[in-house]
Amino acid sequence: MNTDEVPYKTYLTEAELPTAWYNLRADMKKKPAPLLNPGTLKPVTAEELEHVFCKELVRQELDDTTQFIPIPDEVQKFYRMFRPSPLIRAYFLERALGTPAKIYYKFEGNNTSGSHKLNSAVAQAYYAKAQGLKGVTTETGAGQWGTALSMACAFFGLDCQVYMVKCSYEQKPFRREVMRTYGADVTPSPSMKTKIGRAINEAHPGTTGSLGCAISEAVEAAVTQDGYRYVLGSVLAQVLLHQSIIGLEAKAAFDKLGVKPDLVIGCAGGGSNLGGLIAPFMGEKLRGEADYRFIAVEPASCPSFTRGRYAYDFCDTGKVCPLQKMYTLGHDFIPSANHAGGLRYHGMSATLSELYDQKLMEARAVEQTSVFAAAEQFARVEGILPAPESSHAIRVAIDEALRCKEEGKAETILFGLTGTGYFDMVAYQKYNDREMGDYIPSDEELAASFAKLPKV
Amino acid sequence: MNTDEVPYKTYLTEAELPTAWYNLRADMKKKPAPLLNPGTLKPVTAEELEHVFCKELVRQELDDTTQFIPIPDEVQKFYRMFRPSPLIRAYFLERALGTPAKIYYKFEGNNTSGSHKLNSAVAQAYYAKAQGLKGVTTETGAGQWGTALSMACAFFGLDCQVYMVKCSYEQKPFRREVMRTYGADVTPSPSMKTKIGRAINEAHPGTTGSLGCAISEAVEAAVTQDGYRYVLGSVLAQVLLHQSIIGLEAKAAFDKLGVKPDLVIGCAGGGSNLGGLIAPFMGEKLRGEADYRFIAVEPASCPSFTRGRYAYDFCDTGKVCPLQKMYTLGHDFIPSANHAGGLRYHGMSATLSELYDQKLMEARAVEQTSVFAAAEQFARVEGILPAPESSHAIRVAIDEALRCKEEGKAETILFGLTGTGYFDMVAYQKYNDREMGDYIPSDEELAASFAKLPKV
Repeated sequence: MNTDEVPYKTYLTEAELPTAWYNLRADMKKKPAPLLNPGTLKPVTAEELEHVFCKELVRQELDDTTQFIPIPDEVQKFYRMFRPSPLIRAYFLERALGTPAKIYYKFEGNNTSGSHKLNSAVAQAYYAKAQGLKGVTTETGAGQWGTALSMACAFFGLDCQVYMVKCSYEQKPFRREVMRTYGADVTPSPSMKTKIGRAINEAHPGTTGSLGCAISEAVEAAVTQDGYRYVLGSVLAQVLLHQSIIGLEAKAAFDKLGVKPDLVIGCAGGGSNLGGLIAPFMGEKLRGEADYRFIAVEPASCPSFTRGRYAYDFCDTGKVCPLQKMYTLGHDFIPSANHAGGLRYHGMSATLSELYDQKLMEARAVEQTSVFAAAEQFARVEGILPAPESSHAIRVAIDEALRCKEEGKAETILFGLTGTGYFDMVAYQKYNDREMGDYIPSDEELAASFAKLPKV
Repeated sequence: MNTDEVPYKTYLTEAELPTAWYNLRADMKKKPAPLLNPGTLKPVTAEELEHVFCKELVRQELDDTTQFIPIPDEVQKFYRMFRPSPLIRAYFLERALGTPAKIYYKFEGNNTSGSHKLNSAVAQAYYAKAQGLKGVTTETGAGQWGTALSMACAFFGLDCQVYMVKCSYEQKPFRREVMRTYGADVTPSPSMKTKIGRAINEAHPGTTGSLGCAISEAVEAAVTQDGYRYVLGSVLAQVLLHQSIIGLEAKAAFDKLGVKPDLVIGCAGGGSNLGGLIAPFMGEKLRGEADYRFIAVEPASCPSFTRGRYAYDFCDTGKVCPLQKMYTLGHDFIPSANHAGGLRYHGMSATLSELYDQKLMEARAVEQTSVFAAAEQFARVEGILPAPESSHAIRVAIDEALRCKEEGKAETILFGLTGTGYFDMVAYQKYNDREMGDYIPSDEELAASFAKLPKV
């Protein structure tokens, strides 16, 4: 272990922090396919989207040509609360593995939301405030996005209405209380506050809800209240844009160290952290300036990239949001028995889907018991208790480092450590008690789900 | 708000990190009184202490003359995982208060244990390993110390046996699971594993335990197993020594910025974080090189400094540990209804007690509802959800900043933000639901407790 080579942690100075987000789509020759209006199946217009989303965010969503978009001054100030995040050299993990590989990770968990979600939440809350809105509505499953948005809204003095999937609301009371401490109004979904919520409660008495239903309630709440818009924490191009701060900081830190990664690894649910982490590296690859390998890691129980179809599909089970061309398991697919709530999404960012389809990125599916084994090993040597989602990236980073050991190669690996696992101890307990299982959907199950893909 | 003046966060570079702990006692003309053997009431000898504690830690405990003690290389490496901690300028809090005061805080919560406890845990685990021990035993109440020690033991490959107060074990299953994830053996106390645990269970069937009982079990487990010693996370001089890393880093960062604080504020339970934070500043004051105000903040429900006696007392209710001269409420005093578990200790560090007795430091007691109001205000503008313990310091920092506003003074305030509140959401929920009360012990209650002080 040679700690003289590069520091254990590299922090950019505040003067070195990025002042603009990087819009990866601007460098893609073949762009992601346009979003479609779910009613007309024609490309959505800005005007249509502005009923649901903030004006400036719609502009960002539809802009696939501007390379850099300035970060507003107030957002830059907020970023200073928790950014720069450190680029960490995993000396202790390297030592434990006995690998010649040099492993780095960009740690996004050092903020109260516990994840990278805050990067986009503060941007979205800022634009809502700048537009003169009263508040925003959203849904949350695992709770990281809801927490991040609550923090951002508290800061800008915006009302924040969170529809939290009822089973999470009841099983994760601490997440709920963090949101309440930040002044958010947290409603278990399905609720009696919305038309769609009341209808679902009537049709399915005692239901514990779903993310799709919570999205539909949040959207209804946004369009039926004056001065409200709906915001979303993943999947959308605007979210990947804001998350590019992760990759930009990582790249700036590597440049400062004079290091170039060979391989960039991230977990992928809707794709927001992976899209943000790889953005500037992928940009260099697209422009022919450098080459990198990229690996998206997903749960074997929800394998959008590795077993999904590249097709237009609904983003939500309620079918109220625009259709997106993406790798998808079908909007009715229900992933089972996976403790990484943030990765249990049937689809994938359109931008990442297009890059994957162009073979610019690899994908790998991993089983959750092997993910928790990696999480435990990492926690014990690197001192950070990782979120189950993030641990998917750890699993593959370890696997690749062991491959390097076998092949005698000193490759440089970067992975994204998106968050901490403090609110995931129920999952850790299952693992500690050896009560955790794996689940892989059958081909028949997927075929049935694919059969319901919309005909576009 | 002028963010150009000094950065929002100041991090030392790894080359600037302290390489030795500072032993504040070396600069005290009148030293803290010696520990007494609970059997003979004579000053304890190193030999007596070595049955219970590691050899090198005993040496540190009894050394009140060496000014700087080198930090072992392996401990310095471990520190790099989570140190330096940032010195943060609370620009957003200043703006919210409209105060001319300049507020800084040293944030120790950016590690998986969630608090400053890891600073001493890694040192104690290192010395245990260096002595060739198999493992260590300890007790934990709120769970921060147990978590920190589990992390340190996992790193050094030491067995870690934690006796966790039974009511905490049951009410805080997530804390327990973090410890288990780090490989610790966590036993609810009183247990059937020790003689004293069995006796207590027999005398009080169904008891939910106490910290005093857990200490007694942990000490028994240490002295009855070959190759084990007992370790403690607060109160002792050795712990304050290790925690001096907090103050040394803070002072180095201030020196780098060319800033000198007027006032240093910290919460005080057993005194470990406060003693560590103030150490180098108090050293300058003792040596006549500079002057500072210091304020220890304690809960009104457990007011050791502000209403206690300066006397020899037992450190534990089981009376197995040495007696210490300290500000104490009496070893039988049971503080009620306070959610800051880490501050519910009847006594106080002997070093801090002596400094307070010499009027080198002030103390203030605050009520918990006003503490949670400060926590909420802080969380919403500074973006960090503070631990209830740490929020005692926030309360007084805000009060002092408001005094500065009234008096039109631009004083520089430093406070210690010792940890995060992720595992304290039950308390936050009580506050959010306006179900939290205050509790102040009566004079009669304290008089009854003082009557049981040992006659020394």
